[in-house]
Amino acid sequence: MHKEELIALHQFMFTIKENLESENPNLSFEHYNSLKINPNQVHKSKMEHKHAIFVLGEEIAEAMKDVEPSASKRIAARMSELARRTEKEIDEMPDEKY
Amino acid sequence: MHKEELIALHQFMFTIKENLESENPNLSFEHYNSLKINPNQVHKSKMEHKHAIFVLGEEIAEAMKDVEPSASKRIAARMSELARRTEKEIDEMPDEKY
Amino acid sequence: MHKEELIALHQFMFTIKENLESENPNLSFEHYNSLKINPNQVHKSKMEHKHAIFVLGEEIAEAMKDVEPSASKRIAARMSELARRTEKEIDEMPDEKY
Amino acid sequence: MHKEELIALHQFMFTIKENLESENPNLSFEHYNSLKINPNQVHKSKMEHKHAIFVLGEEIAEAMKDVEPSASKRIAARMSELARRTEKEIDEMPDEKY
Repeated sequence: MHKEELIALHQFMFTIKENLESENPNLSFEHYNSLKINPNQVHKSKMEHKHAIFVLGEEIAEAMKDVEPSASKRIAARMSELARRTEKEIDEMPDEKY
Repeated sequence: MHKEELIALHQFMFTIKENLESENPNLSFEHYNSLKINPNQVHKSKMEHKHAIFVLGEEIAEAMKDVEPSASKRIAARMSELARRTEKEIDEMPDEKY
Repeated sequence: MHKEELIALHQFMFTIKENLESENPNLSFEHYNSLKINPNQVHKSKMEHKHAIFVLGEEIAEAMKDVEPSASKRIAARMSELARRTEKEIDEMPDEKY
Repeated sequence: MHKEELIALHQFMFTIKENLESENPNLSFEHYNSLKINPNQVHKSKMEHKHAIFVLGEEIAEAMKDVEPSASKRIAARMSELARRTEKEIDEMPDEKY
């Protein structure tokens, strides 16, 4: 996947997050916020945007639990797993490369 | 992006589509449906899943337009309220005064 | 607020209404028109001008909903573009590879 | 005019400003920005919100000049005059009152 595609998906999920927040001000997206990344940061690496996508994916799926409990739970778990795996990919990369 | 990651994102967006459809039965996702692909078809190529992700992304974003919080909508409601309240003020005034 | 201030605001909003109408002939401002008031009627009471301001405010805000910048709209366009580009990538690939 | 009505009008004009800015990024609204006020500051006085309304009114009318030159010019001038007059009203008020 090209970098601009990853950024577009990041932007897509960021907008879903914003819509959910405006409907439900109690949502926090703590993990995503702790990453201190946003879709406009084009200088961030592909890996960092991919990581952000999965972290957002997990927290969005968590937020949707009320609507569709079982699918959301399964997807949140899957996203979480892929986020962790991407963290590992980043850790194992030589600094100059990711 | 690895194939399993593309499939997981495809699954993620498919679930959002299902949530939107359950909230609004009028939504159609015609383009996506015409692709005749679903996230469980692991034999489909990475490219096909990527394509499905963007087609779903477009149709989900279209569907979100209607629920997106709108400053104009909020303000129209506020203005309407103040107009009604002013009507009441006028009604309650002695004729000679307003 | 002084009467001349209310009339000036009424005039201001009337001009916005006229601009919107010249851009979009389908707009109707029915409620405002039904009031049969205009900003030049200085003999009308402060209350009547205030009422006209809020009724105009509501109908202008309603009309602005359509031109309001929408994150979802922008993202739908972006996703559509990336979907088309992926279709092209698929077309240009040798059969055995994608 | 009640304080909440002034704040609602301020909010209304602020949204027009934002829509104009999104259509034309060259617009600056310098005078309004220099006031360092926004519609959410409910603790600001009625006079300050009224002043902000006229300053915004002037700059919005200026921005609309391309669409409707003569009316916009006249209204910008009128708004400017009312803004200046409100500044004077504020200056002449005992501190504790405005």
